[in-house]
Amino acid sequence: MGESSSAALPELFAPKVMAVVGASNRPGSVGGSLFRNILRSGYRGVVYPVNPSWTSVSGVRCYPTLGALPEVPELAVLIIPAPAVVPAVEELGRLGTRGVVVISSGFREVGPTGAALEFELAETARRHGMTLVGPNCFGLFTTDPEVSLNATFSETLPASGGIGLVSQSGALGAGILEYGAAERVGFSRFVSVGNRAGVDENALIASLHADPRTRVIILYLESLADGRKFLEAAHAVTEEKPILVIKSGRTAAGEQAARSHTGSLARSNRDHLYDALFEQAGVIRAGTLGELFRAAKIFASGIRTSGPRLAILTNSGGPGIIAADAAARTGLELPALPERLRGPVAASLPPIASVANPLDMTAGADPSHYRSVLGLLLGDEGFDAVLVITTPTGTVSARAVAEAIAAARRGSTKAVVGCLFGLTDLSEEMAYLEGAGVPAFTFPEEAVEALGLLARFRSWQQRPRTEVRRFAVDRDAVRATLTSARTEGTLILPEFAARGVLSAYGLPFPRFERARSVEEAVRSAGSIGYPVVLKVASPDISHKTEVGGVAAGLQDAAELRSAWERMRKSLAARAPSARLDGFEVEAEVAGGKELLVGMQRDPDFGPVLVFGLGGIYVEVLRDVTFRLAPIRTRSARRMIESIRSFPLLAGVRGEPPSDLAAVEEAIERVSQFAVDFPEVQELDINPLIVRPQGLGVAAVDARIVLAPLSP
Amino acid sequence: MGESSSAALPELFAPKVMAVVGASNRPGSVGGSLFRNILRSGYRGVVYPVNPSWTSVSGVRCYPTLGALPEVPELAVLIIPAPAVVPAVEELGRLGTRGVVVISSGFREVGPTGAALEFELAETARRHGMTLVGPNCFGLFTTDPEVSLNATFSETLPASGGIGLVSQSGALGAGILEYGAAERVGFSRFVSVGNRAGVDENALIASLHADPRTRVIILYLESLADGRKFLEAAHAVTEEKPILVIKSGRTAAGEQAARSHTGSLARSNRDHLYDALFEQAGVIRAGTLGELFRAAKIFASGIRTSGPRLAILTNSGGPGIIAADAAARTGLELPALPERLRGPVAASLPPIASVANPLDMTAGADPSHYRSVLGLLLGDEGFDAVLVITTPTGTVSARAVAEAIAAARRGSTKAVVGCLFGLTDLSEEMAYLEGAGVPAFTFPEEAVEALGLLARFRSWQQRPRTEVRRFAVDRDAVRATLTSARTEGTLILPEFAARGVLSAYGLPFPRFERARSVEEAVRSAGSIGYPVVLKVASPDISHKTEVGGVAAGLQDAAELRSAWERMRKSLAARAPSARLDGFEVEAEVAGGKELLVGMQRDPDFGPVLVFGLGGIYVEVLRDVTFRLAPIRTRSARRMIESIRSFPLLAGVRGEPPSDLAAVEEAIERVSQFAVDFPEVQELDINPLIVRPQGLGVAAVDARIVLAPLSP
Repeated sequence: MGESSSAALPELFAPKVMAVVGASNRPGSVGGSLFRNILRSGYRGVVYPVNPSWTSVSGVRCYPTLGALPEVPELAVLIIPAPAVVPAVEELGRLGTRGVVVISSGFREVGPTGAALEFELAETARRHGMTLVGPNCFGLFTTDPEVSLNATFSETLPASGGIGLVSQSGALGAGILEYGAAERVGFSRFVSVGNRAGVDENALIASLHADPRTRVIILYLESLADGRKFLEAAHAVTEEKPILVIKSGRTAAGEQAARSHTGSLARSNRDHLYDALFEQAGVIRAGTLGELFRAAKIFASGIRTSGPRLAILTNSGGPGIIAADAAARTGLELPALPERLRGPVAASLPPIASVANPLDMTAGADPSHYRSVLGLLLGDEGFDAVLVITTPTGTVSARAVAEAIAAARRGSTKAVVGCLFGLTDLSEEMAYLEGAGVPAFTFPEEAVEALGLLARFRSWQQRPRTEVRRFAVDRDAVRATLTSARTEGTLILPEFAARGVLSAYGLPFPRFERARSVEEAVRSAGSIGYPVVLKVASPDISHKTEVGGVAAGLQDAAELRSAWERMRKSLAARAPSARLDGFEVEAEVAGGKELLVGMQRDPDFGPVLVFGLGGIYVEVLRDVTFRLAPIRTRSARRMIESIRSFPLLAGVRGEPPSDLAAVEEAIERVSQFAVDFPEVQELDINPLIVRPQGLGVAAVDARIVLAPLSP
Repeated sequence: MGESSSAALPELFAPKVMAVVGASNRPGSVGGSLFRNILRSGYRGVVYPVNPSWTSVSGVRCYPTLGALPEVPELAVLIIPAPAVVPAVEELGRLGTRGVVVISSGFREVGPTGAALEFELAETARRHGMTLVGPNCFGLFTTDPEVSLNATFSETLPASGGIGLVSQSGALGAGILEYGAAERVGFSRFVSVGNRAGVDENALIASLHADPRTRVIILYLESLADGRKFLEAAHAVTEEKPILVIKSGRTAAGEQAARSHTGSLARSNRDHLYDALFEQAGVIRAGTLGELFRAAKIFASGIRTSGPRLAILTNSGGPGIIAADAAARTGLELPALPERLRGPVAASLPPIASVANPLDMTAGADPSHYRSVLGLLLGDEGFDAVLVITTPTGTVSARAVAEAIAAARRGSTKAVVGCLFGLTDLSEEMAYLEGAGVPAFTFPEEAVEALGLLARFRSWQQRPRTEVRRFAVDRDAVRATLTSARTEGTLILPEFAARGVLSAYGLPFPRFERARSVEEAVRSAGSIGYPVVLKVASPDISHKTEVGGVAAGLQDAAELRSAWERMRKSLAARAPSARLDGFEVEAEVAGGKELLVGMQRDPDFGPVLVFGLGGIYVEVLRDVTFRLAPIRTRSARRMIESIRSFPLLAGVRGEPPSDLAAVEEAIERVSQFAVDFPEVQELDINPLIVRPQGLGVAAVDARIVLAPLSP
């Protein structure tokens, strides 16, 4: 079996033979309803009930043991008590079964004993090379007509369609499906991953990527199985298919709830890391379930847009204005109606119509107006998408307008979205429109926001592709420094060492010299050039400023001498027992802006890069961004551009723009460093001074913290 | 007729006799459908059709002229060609008709001739003391069973309920009503205001305020008829009833050259002025129509909350976490489950339930669990509101849960909101729940956001009531200065005069003295105290720094003398022709933060106050807030607190907090000044230096611009 077909997980989504272990005739039992659901879904393979208590289940011959089955099931669904699960999986593995779905609960979610059982379950499946779903899950289904399998215990399932859903919460998944059924939203596949002892969202998005029936992937997640793998897996998928995610537990309150729900580790609110991760992976994060459904609807329809230029066609001003407001919010453009269209459009319309964008045909518009003007808009190269709005006028029916829209759209590949304002989304008119390939929304803003997501996905797909740059660095020198620090049991590198390490990775520090006497210092300053900064060098002093150990802005030898004298006295008074390694005379970096560039190693996400403007911007206004390392050049640039105070770097009030290319490179070099040395726990360059374009950056202070050695 | 009953507009909402001028039997005519709608709505008064072309309309005796009517109509609805409208209104006025609704279009919306006609129409109605709705409108209705009037041309009307709707767009209003009908949302009254030649939203919110059947007022507005009156009218209403508004149509940013920061800020942030206005008036601005409907639903239900403390009761973890996230976003609190409840709750539930908040009863929960635990939560003083979520489990029906919720809620006055996840809002179960006084929402976030609005309205109603403070000021001195500037044709006051004017309003400037010679300057500095600032005083120099006309940080007489000499030379070289009024020696204000406090007079809103941190915060990061003058003390404080950089003023990193009371007072004094002198177009105090608590503020630079005299 090749790599790509194994990624597709045919054992889950196209089994020819199945067993339901724990199938039953007992009323209200999960095993009973799941088995009945498989039969009722019109499964195209063969399914066997396994249960020593019954001769037949729902009229199908029941087998007392797995061994008694007439053939080996490709997939088995287990609804049996937790202690019986591992032996059953062991036996299935020996028989040659490829996939197993464990509905049963009683594992990690109930405590340490359950967790041990779950570990054993995962190991057993792994040893036999079986694909494991669950435990503690709701099952899976596929609407593929060649398979037609509902192996969940939900009777109400949505219609066939383009949405593939993976849910970490069984109940939430069931709710989404039930709502989807009520709202006529179609699904391709659904998997409830439960405790994720086997397959997780990363394996499943690869599988949904390979499934031609899935047009959009929806994930409900409370945590990521593996953040770094998710980045890679999702990044590959979003090259072709959109991924929408609801990541809950996003606030401290929600995370608290999520923790007690899944038993995940205690930690502070790290929601911004998820935002960074999704942004880097091209994944669209929905803020609410409502947003999720609307986004899923438009992506599942298959329509796509080639750009952000929107035309709005309406028969009333108000909803048109509301849509125009929403377009501005959503980042869509509303180009003026091109000159070439004005004549033909005006000729098609009543004289009081507003020949503009939004194009208000007024209440007198009839279906023929919709058809002809929409045709003109779709035929023009000036627009990428059209939103058509109709409001009740008493003189024209929504159905007739829907038919006109469908007729005008035929043959065009442009995105057309409808808003039949006044009708609910369950109306027959909306169903007609959607059947004709025109996603319809209740409110104008919802239609525009959905189109905005199409444009955003398009822009992601069209982004300039950049790579992770590798710079020539002196890795061996750093290795030596870190190893010797480790040997000495040092966790916080001395600043001198931190500077050496980062210099070896090409991060520029101002020129400096070590001096042991004031005469040496004056000589050094003469060769470095004034102004200079004088700093104490001591392994015992980590906050130099607090003990008077830094003097900046020294303009000449006299100032340097007097600063030396003051510093000596201050140190004698305020740090009398500190060992001194002498003093450093450093070129002063002037005319720049202070930045913070750093890295923090996260237990789930690995190295996380941090960027912001230094000082109060980071410390008080919390204006920082995060990305996962390794970082691509484009991501580094977007990181810089995404802070609120970015205008200060772009150049304002007659100031020259800062050297953004140098900042970008500094971030990328830190990224490379973070990836190369997993033993580095934290890194802070604060400040990194950026000077005007062409003049580069200079790191002024650096701090590197190593991870404690594992015991 | 008394003042209050006249505010209620009984001529529109409770007419005993009506005429429909232009009623007709012609199929498809507006006059025909409007007249039929009145009959079909079960109108409790008497309605007469008036039309010379028909003997009867819809079976009712038709009169050829107004004069032929057997009695005087209290209210007339006109659907006749625009030129015939004014004569008809004139005749109605003479007859003694009190109200008139002009459906006809052909007025301001078609150009100058129509605008003239509209002016005449408004004048005619005003002269006769008639209440005029329209022209160019969609009509009005009331579901009051004592009146039962549908005077619109829409056949599909929503049920009776607590929402009063005023719409500036007829089509949008019609769409809202039609959607409301489909979604079972009930309305009390609706008015389409059309071109607003007569009554506007301000008169109508007062009328809806007086209507006991209206529980929440919804406005759709594209502009305000009068921003200042709206503030007053709405502020009075929101003491008792919530107002929700959709304000669409952002004004394009004016290209008008900005004369000051305040001016350009106010102009480029026109939409923020609406935000400021709504905030000050206690009006809730909905971002989208979907938000509007959900907010209207919960307010119209009549439930209210006494605080922000929310309990979440659910039978599945996922939706509970989603709701918890939404609660944090919305500003609701999720207190831990009180110790006193733990025992009783645990005793009522299966052992695996999570006895916390969210309270996850797990999928095994049956209706009796819902009933008993909800009863416990409602009986506890630790919570102000409860959200109950149920997701499909296959073992319990949503209907049974809905009944349990309704039963537990009976007798409690606390807010209970439901989310029957998986069902559409048109489901019978949701209808049942809402019938039992429990608003139900499709998604958990929507339920939480709606509860958040209840809490927000409660907090508005419980806000500390502050007044507009009036300070003792020297108004006459300012009057004299402004009059003399006017007389001289000066529009931009000399800085000296601006300082004098603001000092007269109690805004503190640093002490300064005028000096004509260096010896005078040294004497002044001696009496003021060093450090000082030296500034040139000239009516011809507005940007002093650019010509070397400012020297700061002068520490002693020697530095003052040398600065004087440098300044003299620089002025001779860079401003040789400027008239000099001497120099100013000013106490230097140290140790504070720079603020901008200003005022810009807006054509629609009147005096708009502006506040922000000075320098880049205002200019680059656009971190400013706006409020309308006159301002109450609480609003001034909220203004200060609402900027993003507020933490810098509150005291961070060991810095003392700034003197916020002094800033508050400065804003209030500027407000008083702005109200007292309508001829002041713009005012900028930039910077206003605020020092640590107790040390006050000092205005360092001020600029006052007068409005040009009207020709």
